[in-house]
Amino acid sequence: MTVTAEGSATVIINGETTRFLDIADRGLQYGDGVFTTLSVQEGVALFLDRHLARLQADARRLDIPFPCQAMLTEEVLRIACTHPECVLKIMLTRGVGGRGYLAPKPSKGTRILSAHGKPDFPKSIRESGVQARFCKIRLGLNASLAGIKHLNRLEQVLARAEWRDENIREGLMLDHEGFLVEGVMSNVFLVQDAGLRTPLLDRCGVAGVMRGLVLDSARDLGLAVEHARILPEEALGADEIFLTNSVIGIWPVSLLGGKKFPAGRVARLLTRQIDGMAARDLQSQKAGLARDATK
Amino acid sequence: MTVTAEGSATVIINGETTRFLDIADRGLQYGDGVFTTLSVQEGVALFLDRHLARLQADARRLDIPFPCQAMLTEEVLRIACTHPECVLKIMLTRGVGGRGYLAPKPSKGTRILSAHGKPDFPKSIRESGVQARFCKIRLGLNASLAGIKHLNRLEQVLARAEWRDENIREGLMLDHEGFLVEGVMSNVFLVQDAGLRTPLLDRCGVAGVMRGLVLDSARDLGLAVEHARILPEEALGADEIFLTNSVIGIWPVSLLGGKKFPAGRVARLLTRQIDGMAARDLQSQKAGLARDATK
Repeated sequence: MTVTAEGSATVIINGETTRFLDIADRGLQYGDGVFTTLSVQEGVALFLDRHLARLQADARRLDIPFPCQAMLTEEVLRIACTHPECVLKIMLTRGVGGRGYLAPKPSKGTRILSAHGKPDFPKSIRESGVQARFCKIRLGLNASLAGIKHLNRLEQVLARAEWRDENIREGLMLDHEGFLVEGVMSNVFLVQDAGLRTPLLDRCGVAGVMRGLVLDSARDLGLAVEHARILPEEALGADEIFLTNSVIGIWPVSLLGGKKFPAGRVARLLTRQIDGMAARDLQSQKAGLARDATK
Repeated sequence: MTVTAEGSATVIINGETTRFLDIADRGLQYGDGVFTTLSVQEGVALFLDRHLARLQADARRLDIPFPCQAMLTEEVLRIACTHPECVLKIMLTRGVGGRGYLAPKPSKGTRILSAHGKPDFPKSIRESGVQARFCKIRLGLNASLAGIKHLNRLEQVLARAEWRDENIREGLMLDHEGFLVEGVMSNVFLVQDAGLRTPLLDRCGVAGVMRGLVLDSARDLGLAVEHARILPEEALGADEIFLTNSVIGIWPVSLLGGKKFPAGRVARLLTRQIDGMAARDLQSQKAGLARDATK
């Protein structure tokens, strides 16, 4: 079965293979849900533990029920078996019910897993870097939602609508006060004085799983990391800039705001480190699956 | 056929009677859509012209396609015939497609009409007023989304989760800077020196249809209206406070922040005025329907 980047061949909703959801679901009515997007490679959902931990932490912050982990993992495996090379999106919503904005308590929750085709970015991008731009639309500040990968994504939709030039791979977004926060679909890191700087995500933004991997790798490599309020001018003064998400991995930025950047040493170092972690995760999950199969 | 406040007996998606939507719809994936909620009475969708005009204006701001108006009106009539007393929700999403946040251009759009039971608020509320509270969660500022009734409503969901005391009918929300903006499900007006004050909705908030009716009625009655940044302390100093939306009409606030308010003269005056407009709209739409039927 093949999947395309646009559609999805397989969707599982609450364990059932169907792509149709009751419109009363609060995920549609209010964007009342969270999600995570991960890369499936050789039939293995990469860094699944981290994705599920993040999903669970996000759901807890919004008081959205988190399903039985064994059941969720089994559904991930069903998708990964059918689509050994895909992008897997897992959504958890608060489900159906309530009176208007008032949610039922407890709520039942809905879980939706869908397989999508891997985007066909040229491999060379990881070496040569990408062109990025600054977006005009700003991110509103709300500490209650900051860091969460939730379903209210209109700001990202409007930001991504600002350009259609395919050479520009990502747009960087500032918050209401003008500080750099993230890319439309990625997190952002600056390399300065051989250390990393990355925007504080305490007032808006999404704390991505790949961002977490970069932070852990930086620690392992002995690189200092500063979480800060960063102005766009400061970003342009960095030695390197790179973008992260679970599907793209790490992308060096080669051109931003008219300024050229080297596809730098630190991004390469971290890429190698995380490629190693991914390979070990892949082998360890494969070994686990083989053990389960022979039980 | 009966409808309950929680479920919906009739749903029409793109003209077809079904309550199930493709999960690939951007309405679910990103909250990429707009909606309006209106009251159906004696088989007539009250103030339908205003609701469709608002929906169209909101859709235009987000570049979401607006369907053929005759077709949409016909679908509204189908619902209103089957459910002569209901709350009708009309949602327009950007539909299926695109690559991630990047929307297809042009997009096809999805329209969803659903009938819901009228909430069973006691009638006396319109006279005696309601108890309200201030919510802790703030509204993020984003001029690009301000005023639009869009599907990104997590702030409202979190605000409404702050209380379960049924005596408290509404929560008032402040913006990131501490200015009063609106109720969770309503707009808010203060009466001061025999004029009206209502929060500016240029940085966040939803510009409701009933709010528009109140503004027009105030003009007709010769009441001055000031659109302003209002602090909660100022609100507590008002002579009257009232809340508006298309389902509740006008609710005087009788208790807020420990302070009692009279269910005042101006709210009563505006209620009478808008009841009159509703009655005329009802008669005029009924006459139109009778004309169409005998053609």
